[in-house]
Amino acid sequence: MGEPRRGLSRRALLTSGSVGAAGVVVGAAGASAAAHEPPAADPGLRTVPFRGTHQAGVVTPPQDHGVLVAYDLLDGVDADALRRLFAIWTDDVERLTAGRAGLADTEPELALRPSGLTVTLAVGPGAVEAAGVDVPSWLGPLPDFTVDRLEGRWSEGDLLLQICSDDELVVSHALRLLTKEARTFTTVRWVQRGFRGPLGRDRTPRNLMGQVDGTANPRPADHDALVWRSSTTTPEGPAWLDGGTTMVVRRIRMELDTWDEIDRTARERTIGRRLDDGRPLTGGRLEDDPDLDAVDANGLEVIDPFAHVRRARTDDRRQRILRRPYNYDDPPPPGELTDAGLVFVSFQADLEAQFVPLQRRLAELDLLNQWTTPIGSAVFAVLPGARRGEQLGQSLLT
Amino acid sequence: MGEPRRGLSRRALLTSGSVGAAGVVVGAAGASAAAHEPPAADPGLRTVPFRGTHQAGVVTPPQDHGVLVAYDLLDGVDADALRRLFAIWTDDVERLTAGRAGLADTEPELALRPSGLTVTLAVGPGAVEAAGVDVPSWLGPLPDFTVDRLEGRWSEGDLLLQICSDDELVVSHALRLLTKEARTFTTVRWVQRGFRGPLGRDRTPRNLMGQVDGTANPRPADHDALVWRSSTTTPEGPAWLDGGTTMVVRRIRMELDTWDEIDRTARERTIGRRLDDGRPLTGGRLEDDPDLDAVDANGLEVIDPFAHVRRARTDDRRQRILRRPYNYDDPPPPGELTDAGLVFVSFQADLEAQFVPLQRRLAELDLLNQWTTPIGSAVFAVLPGARRGEQLGQSLLT
Repeated sequence: MGEPRRGLSRRALLTSGSVGAAGVVVGAAGASAAAHEPPAADPGLRTVPFRGTHQAGVVTPPQDHGVLVAYDLLDGVDADALRRLFAIWTDDVERLTAGRAGLADTEPELALRPSGLTVTLAVGPGAVEAAGVDVPSWLGPLPDFTVDRLEGRWSEGDLLLQICSDDELVVSHALRLLTKEARTFTTVRWVQRGFRGPLGRDRTPRNLMGQVDGTANPRPADHDALVWRSSTTTPEGPAWLDGGTTMVVRRIRMELDTWDEIDRTARERTIGRRLDDGRPLTGGRLEDDPDLDAVDANGLEVIDPFAHVRRARTDDRRQRILRRPYNYDDPPPPGELTDAGLVFVSFQADLEAQFVPLQRRLAELDLLNQWTTPIGSAVFAVLPGARRGEQLGQSLLT
Repeated sequence: MGEPRRGLSRRALLTSGSVGAAGVVVGAAGASAAAHEPPAADPGLRTVPFRGTHQAGVVTPPQDHGVLVAYDLLDGVDADALRRLFAIWTDDVERLTAGRAGLADTEPELALRPSGLTVTLAVGPGAVEAAGVDVPSWLGPLPDFTVDRLEGRWSEGDLLLQICSDDELVVSHALRLLTKEARTFTTVRWVQRGFRGPLGRDRTPRNLMGQVDGTANPRPADHDALVWRSSTTTPEGPAWLDGGTTMVVRRIRMELDTWDEIDRTARERTIGRRLDDGRPLTGGRLEDDPDLDAVDANGLEVIDPFAHVRRARTDDRRQRILRRPYNYDDPPPPGELTDAGLVFVSFQADLEAQFVPLQRRLAELDLLNQWTTPIGSAVFAVLPGARRGEQLGQSLLT
């Protein structure tokens, strides 16, 4: 296993807690320590540990590039076949994330600079069924939301890999190797590539609408309560998903051409935050909650009743989710200027208690709905991590 | 104009020559100095000068991300209309590359961290005609090569912008703003996005086939003789292109699935270089020329007669070109594993004397042709730079 890098001192390592458990602490400490450290080691050699209670790529600070690939299982793929596939993938992912070539790697040189590579495996209802296990009721299409204009080519899937790295060539290489390894078991259902870039991992990450985005994420101290499934967060089980989480992937097209037509005041009113620095319209710091009760000199609410921050926010702290989105910007179809938006990704221990109520509030009355259109949607179960000697998916396939 | 950054000391600036002339020296010095400098300044604030004799983005060391967008002119766009469009673009590009928002910028916050942004303007035959100027004979489709399988959706165009930055969000923002500004004059013909990533700007840049690529580029001392048009390199004119260059854009699909079927020995024989470090099979350093006359113990040529390095190489030093390619890796069509390859970009003062003979040698007999397919092709004239007080395209539109 390679050493954690990105300007991370021994001291930061020693004081940051359980390094190596899940790759989480390393990334987080690395990001915040970078500004204060002597010249960083080669960032291409940075590794995020693969082994641990949880998979990497969930609470890992987002890398610059990500791809989500959904597979459909071929007919006849059963629990034994899944076990073989997951064994191959476990070995590949352990090697690739450590900066070593996979055993069947035809371009081994492309594996040597992982640049923070993580690969996260999740299952859809089809794979759970193939494993011969009861499919949890929430693992399937989300409830219909009135704003949805879903297309099959961006929705659902039996298996999912999320592959992220600061180097897009590394993402391409891992995607190709892992997809080749799976070709006797699967077909590719969809591929969604995205980017954040240095701007996106800045303290004020922005999306293509220019908005500061994703600042309200749960802090590391809340991950056990909000992200990871356990006998505490989800006592009803299933037990095979303890240590895992639930994952929502939604492709949200941004209607940038009409968004352009409204002015900054209208945009800020839509969001409820200032565009220049992302602070709530009611003041305070970027990370502060907006004051939803504040009124202006005329007695009107400062934060519009239908503003995105009001609808996205909840007083129930247990309803928060971990957002980990990527931007997409594809070549536009003929006659249009842009085909861009957000590959929205969220993780939450309990899909029905955390994600669905939030999404319902947004779907009903969020002002931002006028300029965004969900065109793809899928729900997956992120398997627990593979500890030393274990394989991914082991708990599902016993 | 912003200050050049990326760990660039005052001393490096003072000793690196004519900083500010064309953005070239800054980028080059910054890249090589980075390893020896104290903690780098914020790389998001790095700027490449816009003003100069030559446009930036040609001999500028390649940024991590690039997009090429080709436009077709709407009916009725004449020299006056082009002058207006180029005036708007000049102003936008000067602002954006300096880290300032464009005048009509609807997301000004996305302009503030240019991350080495360059925007390069080039014209195809349609724009030259619209300007009322004779179209040079070489400015049009390349000669037919037997290997070509060209598709209209990746070929030709009246105008081209090449937009490059280390931050993909910056590329998206600039693409969007500049395309919007042009919409009363143009329609988008094609968009090709690509990436190099940190691996790609390493001293051993690699493509998706795992090959070390682009090591044989002319050195800065050769740029005046090989890249830039002038009364010395191209005495026949046209004069409006002095200070500019010619640009070839070819979309080359890599047949990675069949490439996978051959072993490393066959791959190295195809290329004529070692896969692990890119050195010629005849030994020496990465940057050394292969010894084309070397024979092995059996008296056979070490470099295959049809190896890529032999066919791509020329004894005529004046035939060299400046390659500035980007990788692409798009979602595959149904039933296929990959849709990946190279957005090949080259610059050369004299297209017919430098590019065409090289391409002919490759098209005939290059072993690599079995695993690559050109599916798009376009030729453009890169206009000279805009010096202080000038507009892009001024020499064409007088």
